[in-house]
Amino acid sequence: MITSFSNSTIKLVRKLRSKKERQKSGLFYIEGIRIVGEAVSSNWKIETILYSPDLLTSKFAQEMVQGFIDQGRDTTAVTEEVFRNISDKKGPQGIAAVVYQQWSNLGELRIAEGEYWLALDAVADPGNLGTILRTNAAAGGRGVILLDQSTDPFDPSSIRASMGALFCQPIIKAHFQEFAALKREQQVAVVGTSDKASLDYYGWQYPSRLVLLMGSERQGLRGHHAALCDAIVGIPMVGKSDSLNLAVATALVVYEIYNQRRG
Amino acid sequence: MITSFSNSTIKLVRKLRSKKERQKSGLFYIEGIRIVGEAVSSNWKIETILYSPDLLTSKFAQEMVQGFIDQGRDTTAVTEEVFRNISDKKGPQGIAAVVYQQWSNLGELRIAEGEYWLALDAVADPGNLGTILRTNAAAGGRGVILLDQSTDPFDPSSIRASMGALFCQPIIKAHFQEFAALKREQQVAVVGTSDKASLDYYGWQYPSRLVLLMGSERQGLRGHHAALCDAIVGIPMVGKSDSLNLAVATALVVYEIYNQRRG
Repeated sequence: MITSFSNSTIKLVRKLRSKKERQKSGLFYIEGIRIVGEAVSSNWKIETILYSPDLLTSKFAQEMVQGFIDQGRDTTAVTEEVFRNISDKKGPQGIAAVVYQQWSNLGELRIAEGEYWLALDAVADPGNLGTILRTNAAAGGRGVILLDQSTDPFDPSSIRASMGALFCQPIIKAHFQEFAALKREQQVAVVGTSDKASLDYYGWQYPSRLVLLMGSERQGLRGHHAALCDAIVGIPMVGKSDSLNLAVATALVVYEIYNQRRG
Repeated sequence: MITSFSNSTIKLVRKLRSKKERQKSGLFYIEGIRIVGEAVSSNWKIETILYSPDLLTSKFAQEMVQGFIDQGRDTTAVTEEVFRNISDKKGPQGIAAVVYQQWSNLGELRIAEGEYWLALDAVADPGNLGTILRTNAAAGGRGVILLDQSTDPFDPSSIRASMGALFCQPIIKAHFQEFAALKREQQVAVVGTSDKASLDYYGWQYPSRLVLLMGSERQGLRGHHAALCDAIVGIPMVGKSDSLNLAVATALVVYEIYNQRRG
């Protein structure tokens, strides 16, 4: 049982709050029964499960920890005091994990008939990114491509907002030029969104093999991204409104695609 | 020119970060050219405009301040140091305001033919609330009714997320019983959403005079709220997904209502 704040695992957990440390180590930290359960059931590679026997009252979670111990996998028991110290939460449930980041490779991506993917240009806010991952999973989006300087999907705010949807879809990091090459080679339709578009996002027939491309919170769809698109759709707005939250705009278009397909 | 952090206006601004102080005073604090401009152009009652002559380089904003001075309205010039101290922002634009909260009265609400209002039960996250205000304005929602224990629309996170949409629609605070009485007296349709609903939110014909009722982030639509509804619609989800972010779910339904009406 770890009682010391200077234990190396505890120090690692604290370091993983920083994006730089997450990039260097390829790890990230998650906390809570539901999210740790999702990571385990989705077969993500887990470095260690941290738990506090005094805090962990859920039978489901206790059995999950026992399963790890029985399989000889790494677990780290810590005192309640240590757990409360590393926890992000007000009422910690007593279970957390250090998990290996899992990135899919653009080079191996083959977009199949009927699939729709989501590409995000330079999304800045990790809460927005997590919400988008959650919506994309719910609307049947096949996965997410993060273009250029995107925020980190393994940021605590992104993980929280994704509600586990982080684990059930491939996430790919790519440069714009690689994405443009993929479009040419695989002849997949790219549809962008812009407030200046003449096509209405609602009712327009989306191509069957499709990447939906969303611009960033600040800049919207940039020129070279717009140039790549086969079509650009817009979301009508009333009165003085001239923009929507990125996660909201993405949800409206992704759900319109999903709604058309589920018939 | 105010140079001291202990000036009473500066102290008031700092206090307005707390919900309790906002409730006591009936005031709130906003910052930045766009949002102060929205408050002024929407004719909200302004206690004072604070500005730092050294930071305020925008001609539009300078003219706005000069207009206030010319009309003999209250303005407060502060040093750059003081402004940076009260500012929430990394790159402050040098203009802020203390504004009177403006609440509309449920007793005076008459829901007209063709209008749709949004009612939110106990929304907890001010960022969600602000995003919902922004979406509701864009989708032609007439106003927002906050039921029971709702977070504060004048919280800085709500104001930021609303992108000025706070100023262009009436906001009403009401207890559930008052809302139920309004429904009976005005015979307006109330439509709820739930993940257990059998009606599909997409394509279902929404009544012409309508209040859309959304449950809270944690609890969804509670029993006594569901009981009040004339219909309950659901948003289909794929695979393991069982919920959406509240601002996303609200956006999907509000936009479906708007899309049906704009034809």
